[in-house]
Amino acid sequence: MKIPVGILGATGAVGQRFIQLLENHPWFEVAEVAASDRSAGKSYAEACTWRLAGAPPAATARLTVTTTDAPFRSRLLFSGLDSSVAGEVETALASKGHAVVSNSRNHRMDADVPLLIPEVNAGHLDALAGQRKRTGGGYIVTNPNCSVVGLAMALAPLSRAFAIEDVHVVTLQALSGAGYPGVPSMDVADNVVPYIGGGEEEKIEAEPRKILGAFKNAAFVPADFPIAASVHRVAVSDGHTMAIFVRFAKDVDPAAAAAALASFKGEPQELKLPFAPVKAIHVLEGNDRPQPRLDRDRENGMAVSVGRVRANGPRGLKLEALVHNTIRGAAGAAILNGELLKARGLLA
Amino acid sequence: MKIPVGILGATGAVGQRFIQLLENHPWFEVAEVAASDRSAGKSYAEACTWRLAGAPPAATARLTVTTTDAPFRSRLLFSGLDSSVAGEVETALASKGHAVVSNSRNHRMDADVPLLIPEVNAGHLDALAGQRKRTGGGYIVTNPNCSVVGLAMALAPLSRAFAIEDVHVVTLQALSGAGYPGVPSMDVADNVVPYIGGGEEEKIEAEPRKILGAFKNAAFVPADFPIAASVHRVAVSDGHTMAIFVRFAKDVDPAAAAAALASFKGEPQELKLPFAPVKAIHVLEGNDRPQPRLDRDRENGMAVSVGRVRANGPRGLKLEALVHNTIRGAAGAAILNGELLKARGLLA
Amino acid sequence: MKIPVGILGATGAVGQRFIQLLENHPWFEVAEVAASDRSAGKSYAEACTWRLAGAPPAATARLTVTTTDAPFRSRLLFSGLDSSVAGEVETALASKGHAVVSNSRNHRMDADVPLLIPEVNAGHLDALAGQRKRTGGGYIVTNPNCSVVGLAMALAPLSRAFAIEDVHVVTLQALSGAGYPGVPSMDVADNVVPYIGGGEEEKIEAEPRKILGAFKNAAFVPADFPIAASVHRVAVSDGHTMAIFVRFAKDVDPAAAAAALASFKGEPQELKLPFAPVKAIHVLEGNDRPQPRLDRDRENGMAVSVGRVRANGPRGLKLEALVHNTIRGAAGAAILNGELLKARGLLA
Amino acid sequence: MKIPVGILGATGAVGQRFIQLLENHPWFEVAEVAASDRSAGKSYAEACTWRLAGAPPAATARLTVTTTDAPFRSRLLFSGLDSSVAGEVETALASKGHAVVSNSRNHRMDADVPLLIPEVNAGHLDALAGQRKRTGGGYIVTNPNCSVVGLAMALAPLSRAFAIEDVHVVTLQALSGAGYPGVPSMDVADNVVPYIGGGEEEKIEAEPRKILGAFKNAAFVPADFPIAASVHRVAVSDGHTMAIFVRFAKDVDPAAAAAALASFKGEPQELKLPFAPVKAIHVLEGNDRPQPRLDRDRENGMAVSVGRVRANGPRGLKLEALVHNTIRGAAGAAILNGELLKARGLLA
Repeated sequence: MKIPVGILGATGAVGQRFIQLLENHPWFEVAEVAASDRSAGKSYAEACTWRLAGAPPAATARLTVTTTDAPFRSRLLFSGLDSSVAGEVETALASKGHAVVSNSRNHRMDADVPLLIPEVNAGHLDALAGQRKRTGGGYIVTNPNCSVVGLAMALAPLSRAFAIEDVHVVTLQALSGAGYPGVPSMDVADNVVPYIGGGEEEKIEAEPRKILGAFKNAAFVPADFPIAASVHRVAVSDGHTMAIFVRFAKDVDPAAAAAALASFKGEPQELKLPFAPVKAIHVLEGNDRPQPRLDRDRENGMAVSVGRVRANGPRGLKLEALVHNTIRGAAGAAILNGELLKARGLLA
Repeated sequence: MKIPVGILGATGAVGQRFIQLLENHPWFEVAEVAASDRSAGKSYAEACTWRLAGAPPAATARLTVTTTDAPFRSRLLFSGLDSSVAGEVETALASKGHAVVSNSRNHRMDADVPLLIPEVNAGHLDALAGQRKRTGGGYIVTNPNCSVVGLAMALAPLSRAFAIEDVHVVTLQALSGAGYPGVPSMDVADNVVPYIGGGEEEKIEAEPRKILGAFKNAAFVPADFPIAASVHRVAVSDGHTMAIFVRFAKDVDPAAAAAALASFKGEPQELKLPFAPVKAIHVLEGNDRPQPRLDRDRENGMAVSVGRVRANGPRGLKLEALVHNTIRGAAGAAILNGELLKARGLLA
Repeated sequence: MKIPVGILGATGAVGQRFIQLLENHPWFEVAEVAASDRSAGKSYAEACTWRLAGAPPAATARLTVTTTDAPFRSRLLFSGLDSSVAGEVETALASKGHAVVSNSRNHRMDADVPLLIPEVNAGHLDALAGQRKRTGGGYIVTNPNCSVVGLAMALAPLSRAFAIEDVHVVTLQALSGAGYPGVPSMDVADNVVPYIGGGEEEKIEAEPRKILGAFKNAAFVPADFPIAASVHRVAVSDGHTMAIFVRFAKDVDPAAAAAALASFKGEPQELKLPFAPVKAIHVLEGNDRPQPRLDRDRENGMAVSVGRVRANGPRGLKLEALVHNTIRGAAGAAILNGELLKARGLLA
Repeated sequence: MKIPVGILGATGAVGQRFIQLLENHPWFEVAEVAASDRSAGKSYAEACTWRLAGAPPAATARLTVTTTDAPFRSRLLFSGLDSSVAGEVETALASKGHAVVSNSRNHRMDADVPLLIPEVNAGHLDALAGQRKRTGGGYIVTNPNCSVVGLAMALAPLSRAFAIEDVHVVTLQALSGAGYPGVPSMDVADNVVPYIGGGEEEKIEAEPRKILGAFKNAAFVPADFPIAASVHRVAVSDGHTMAIFVRFAKDVDPAAAAAALASFKGEPQELKLPFAPVKAIHVLEGNDRPQPRLDRDRENGMAVSVGRVRANGPRGLKLEALVHNTIRGAAGAAILNGELLKARGLLA
């Protein structure tokens, strides 16, 4: 018997990825799909204009879409809601006892909500005890912004092995990150746009510090190094590329840094969670890698790829990172979070 | 009577741009075209597969292509030679008394060769006195790498107004920068390549320091701040975009920095050289500019566009710059150099 | 003294092209700009998000936007209105005595409205006499759909020289044809869409027959051959490419067909209208031409390019045509229509 | 025990697809890899620059590359050789007793070589009896050009159900069809190229007629309707799109045609060959399908997708077809051919 789960925002871009990725999941089964009033009452097949390859899974296509204030029988709800509504809806559902595993930005920086990357900060789940006291039983767990997942995973082993002083990151982000209809084609035809709305740079500068920080004395203590980000939209369907400069307190050998990246692992690998990549970070050898088209799908899109780890003076490194923004950077990240909750007994 | 000029490497990507841009030039007239042995003896129309829009200018199409060791009657030679041959050919032609204005990389860092951006370091032409003593009369003047033109022009007013401590730059470079056939289409289809061969990062880290440095006591003294670069090829036809982080010795106000950029000018503007942009740097207001498709052609591709000048802590700035890589970043840069030489009386 | 003109739909994609192309026009001057209620009362600079390269002309930027029911002092109005409103607005303005030169589809097939390509069917202006009787003085003249301009111009000389039996055409249409925001980028990223809404195929199958037909006994008589169209959206910024198959009643020599195309001209060339291309059709020699990036801007985007004129059996031809869809296929087409009206004394 | 197979041209674009697709094949195992002299003696990992996603299968990476004149112990050889060498090499290997299943064009139109699409013309294998008499035991079987697979599969059910009079087809072909380095990126950046070298149009006009014809009295009799093709290269990574016009001898109902397409099947489906798609042709409902990015991977890239089956007069149809050019249109096609040979006992 699989665990029934509900999908919030099921007809949207992230919701569709949830449904695609959960088809044939060994533990979870999509039992409920919720979306806006406009969709409610229709079959999922009718309500949804499927924009991923192929067609929606037949079992989900037959489900009737409900609104997000319907009573859900699934304890676990994956949320791909738009940030314009996610805040209140998720709060309400947590207060009704649900485990809300959200990809939305609204609660990421809340004082008792884990901003979770299972390989990096599984210990932040300790915050749930306090949160549940507040809500009366349910809770919210979030995953980071799509770029942040790649950045924070690349920084985690470096931060553990060496003391980081500061970080500069420039992103080249894929079109799918903007949802649908998202970016008008004329904006990226033969073009690059050096801007992404919705506070993208601010998120990239803030979220990794919460993730790479500690949860101590019932409070999150962010990592103490600053991050400066400059973001770009490029004409790539999927896969965010990042050029990262890291400066350390002491001299760092690029080969040692690459080794720390390549051996990085965490609870998902130890527990062999279904969506866990065997290797969390793939350190690639070619001097022109990672590349979105060639590397975004490594380990079904759940591994982060890193390449060109090279010196920038004795105390600095330059490196490139790549994350599949709608899998490891969104729906897949949330599913892995859900798996960790299950493995930890937090869905009981 | 216009001044006759010769084009070296006339059938290549840069050579074609020279010929396109020099059509109807008020001072210069393409009188001679030189290329490899394979092309010599043919008409330019026959020898050249024209890859720019439209067709080659009729007057040039009729010229007979010579080899680069032919005797040239033009004093001024513009070189778009491939770096595999440019070094020796340009040296030989300078020793024969020619003014060689080169876009090739070979002599850029030579001890007595100006690496010239007329708005920035016209004073470096003082190095010609020593060079001409060495060659016996002729000389070589070079322009920088296509990305470097944009970077050095953006840094020049900042470096003059404030003391720079270090620079990080990430480039998103256009396909035309690789010449023809250049980058295979499968490498950039739905993709980004985080690497450019030919020592691109090294050039970007070194050339601006020579340009922004001084020529004192018969020697170039490079600027004393380090530059760290990370380069990418993106699927854009023309126009290199750069995300730049600058750290200063003291606090810098972004508005003051933007004002310094917007008012930047030099000898080309004062002398009203034909190819000089009215404003060397266009500081754009939109929070999503500059963009290659919309901004690369400002002032016929000779202006550098800058946008998003914003704070990065009290002593830091983030900004975006854009340069038309085959005009201001290559053939147009060389033509402006030739115009300055003429205006200074160095072609007499 | 230039002739003042008004632009309807001035802030939209077509309206912006009108304003860009009319800057420095020798006869016309943009004196009035009209758009929706949302824009009315603002300066054009404020009301318009300029999406073409660079910035709007300064003189137009200062104009105050009016609504389309404002009284216009310009006799000549260029309309780039959206088809949801163009029908009624243009009718009303013609009834007030204006010469409405429209790019919108609404009145193209009306029984007394010329669907005009000045090189092809200038004689259709005879329909204005009847129309003006109906309206009381003003009138509407339309230009065809963006693909149709290229198709009808390519077919016109063939239809005159030889008897056409049927036509098959497949289009590969540029993104700008859909306006802004138009096509979502995810729809064309690494993709082709074999469909264009708004009855595109129907227009391509009907409009050329009106254009290539006659105006006799106060009625339009369409050309008698059928056209079958299949349309596609491709990831190109500007320039519609068309693969055309024509079957004739008798044997046709490809060289004779190419000669007929190359020598094609009409009133715009004879009258030397400002926007008339010197050669209406450029017959290109390369076996891989025309191409949008290389050929769309021939004669400032006003020439149609044709290539690969080759046999398809003794009575058939295959050929490729290219038209700059937002210049010759839209705003530029309307301006040329306006010029012909002026030259014919129809604006007096 | 799996059947060992050799890959000819193993390091090339088609060879890499063979190796990728054959990893974990239930019947076949890549045992030998052959390429040019330059690669011979190296491990496959060393010899090959892998250009597909991820990395080559570990088992193949360890194999040592041989030349194509090495003795092969595998009876079955899949050939992805370049056409400059495939002709002679394949002839020689057939004469040594091998079953050469080739993707190369050289022998496709030979008088006793099947040009095979197992769903369409499995009966053409009867030609092998004669061929083997000639060679002394070995034989060559070919698959069609990448576009032709899609076209011939779409025409087969129409040709069987109704009498075709003529066909017009326009292709929009993917970049991967040109191999590597293939098309220079500058040729397709913001562009379409209305030409493909190597006789692409001629192949599309000839090959389907052999495939859809008969093998009677020891000779191939081509289908009797003409095909006219016009080809284009577009900026899509994988997936050839085709706009097809078919004219019939009698009236045809589009719904009946769609039904004939949707129910099309052949020996691969009956025999449940490992690479056989469950449904050979997917008839899609959306009015904007098929699209390369969304539909090329249906049934692991082995199904052809068809959409927009609509009337073109009473005796005509318009439809769109899509084929994954490097899977169903190349390596996957050959593998399915190999599977049919095995199932028919022709590898014994």
